[in-house]
Amino acid sequence: MPYPKTTDAFTVTSTKSWSNFTRQEVPLKKFEEDDIDIAVDACGVCASDIHTITGGWGEIPLPLCVGHEIIGRAIRIGSKVQGIALGDRIGVGAQVAADLACNNCKADQENYCPNQKETYGAQYDDGTITQGGFSSHVRVHQHFAFKIPDTIDSAVAGPMMCAGLTTYSPLKRLGAGPGKKVAVCGLGGLGHFAVLWSVALGAETYVISHSPKKKEDALKLGAKEFICTTDDSWTERWTYTFDMILNCATTDRLDLPSFFSTLKVHGTFHMVGLPDNPLPSVKVQAFALNGCSLSASNIGNRTEMIEMLEFAAKRNIKCWVDTVDIGEKGCKEAVERVHKGDGVRYRLVLTNYDAIFGQRS
Amino acid sequence: MPYPKTTDAFTVTSTKSWSNFTRQEVPLKKFEEDDIDIAVDACGVCASDIHTITGGWGEIPLPLCVGHEIIGRAIRIGSKVQGIALGDRIGVGAQVAADLACNNCKADQENYCPNQKETYGAQYDDGTITQGGFSSHVRVHQHFAFKIPDTIDSAVAGPMMCAGLTTYSPLKRLGAGPGKKVAVCGLGGLGHFAVLWSVALGAETYVISHSPKKKEDALKLGAKEFICTTDDSWTERWTYTFDMILNCATTDRLDLPSFFSTLKVHGTFHMVGLPDNPLPSVKVQAFALNGCSLSASNIGNRTEMIEMLEFAAKRNIKCWVDTVDIGEKGCKEAVERVHKGDGVRYRLVLTNYDAIFGQRS
Repeated sequence: MPYPKTTDAFTVTSTKSWSNFTRQEVPLKKFEEDDIDIAVDACGVCASDIHTITGGWGEIPLPLCVGHEIIGRAIRIGSKVQGIALGDRIGVGAQVAADLACNNCKADQENYCPNQKETYGAQYDDGTITQGGFSSHVRVHQHFAFKIPDTIDSAVAGPMMCAGLTTYSPLKRLGAGPGKKVAVCGLGGLGHFAVLWSVALGAETYVISHSPKKKEDALKLGAKEFICTTDDSWTERWTYTFDMILNCATTDRLDLPSFFSTLKVHGTFHMVGLPDNPLPSVKVQAFALNGCSLSASNIGNRTEMIEMLEFAAKRNIKCWVDTVDIGEKGCKEAVERVHKGDGVRYRLVLTNYDAIFGQRS
Repeated sequence: MPYPKTTDAFTVTSTKSWSNFTRQEVPLKKFEEDDIDIAVDACGVCASDIHTITGGWGEIPLPLCVGHEIIGRAIRIGSKVQGIALGDRIGVGAQVAADLACNNCKADQENYCPNQKETYGAQYDDGTITQGGFSSHVRVHQHFAFKIPDTIDSAVAGPMMCAGLTTYSPLKRLGAGPGKKVAVCGLGGLGHFAVLWSVALGAETYVISHSPKKKEDALKLGAKEFICTTDDSWTERWTYTFDMILNCATTDRLDLPSFFSTLKVHGTFHMVGLPDNPLPSVKVQAFALNGCSLSASNIGNRTEMIEMLEFAAKRNIKCWVDTVDIGEKGCKEAVERVHKGDGVRYRLVLTNYDAIFGQRS
């Protein structure tokens, strides 16, 4: 049963063999009048995909098709959809549904809706499981579909949908801008975006990394200085310096009190990576030395996504991407490279969908 | 060698026998022209005193005289001191010195000065150890001396100097006021102050406690509702409710994810108690469900102290105090009762100093 009942998907069928992808038709939710069907043309590969398919974040429904940095073309549009036309280039991020009725949704915080659904692995009321962008088509509520500005290539737009928003949202909300000092911890897919945004927003931006070889890229991305944590005394020079540290490293092994000590009074250590394991235990005293706070966020909301895409287009901000052709082999290569961590500078995007799935319309 | 070289102090001489007080003369720092000498008339007993004398926060210099909720009369005033006259009623809190030159001090955040000195147990440059208010006299830099409004009794003013400021400062800074829902966790010395301030600032105020017997007092203090955590499902009714939880419970055993779940999006769980042990380990995911933050603060600054005293005077806000006469016996009783936790409603203050130390002038 092909589209429109199903999508032609590269799926993981076991968390034990998480990099083996099986091509198969998986059901799409029933089409409703707020929905848009998208023929996928590109999909970024996110660390979330790896945490999910390896079972690191817990059990998952199988078979599962991951991918939540999706760019494609609108090929079917529900009667209630506004502002999107057939053929429009559309992006979809890590969220595809929310109740749009609760207090959080009403406050434009649908990314914290208790009834939100993630782009893959969540269950709709009709029983179907949400499936991601390693596939021919996705079906999504218009609230979670975003027109992509013409000047942004699909391969560059893809990673913006999750990694881009996830870093843009807290930086903007926490005030990254002129007169502020922002440190980005961890220069990977999320981190390199954070540096691009922070610099473009006008903040004096620093990169903190345990890997000296990231220095050149950090500076190329616009960082003012590169701070390497291999020397245990690295914090000494930076006491009370940063308004904010955006932690993009998905690790549970950071020495939080050291990082806290580099924050200004009332500074924030904000986390956007979700490690599988809990954070190290920390004393309240570590917070009380400068009244700092520890926080995290979950992607961003629709308003921020639209603002980010406009900002990126206007300022010509481009993430660094490697592309890989989609297919069993491409999906395997992609998730293995992202899992390994290095060797991706800085976001990997599956492309060339027409070669596998045809043009679709 | 009596005052002005020394102060006549009730001191702890061993953390093992932390409730046995020995009366002895202990040295005061050299008098400087920014200093004020205060004849002590009242001193609140703070949980910090107990953490200190029991060694819970680490090693301490001995002998040590604690007490950092001090009210007395100015009896000697340095030539550089402004705005204070002999005989003025003066309060001193948990801090007696800072460099007043660093960026934190210049930003009116001298409570986060890296060279700050606490009211007892810190060392001045001349080698003397700071000594607290369980004694006849204290000597303090004018920056840390506060005129007490006439309408506030000394016994009531005492606890404001630490517990009052420690709760007022974060409530005010984090926006407690009309339209906000504030939960105070833990109804003890700090917590009862937090409720008083929060209600007076206009926030809808709730008390969260594991002890059902605190309900009556919570409501009497002005709380809208009392929430008891003895039922494991207590959080269900309060999901996404509070703008802020002010944690006044000095415990390391709170289930943080449960508390986080009751916060609104981007809400704050703020800690003002400093337990001896680290916080429980927590997953980043617990923060990401509502984008909340975990923070702490250290007392407050001079600006906030002055504002708080004016606010308390204007609004006639009175903490609930029990008084005990100072002396070996009184000090012992006081620290033992505060250590025990219950039986103090809600702040214990040593008074009747003239009976022991004479009138002093």
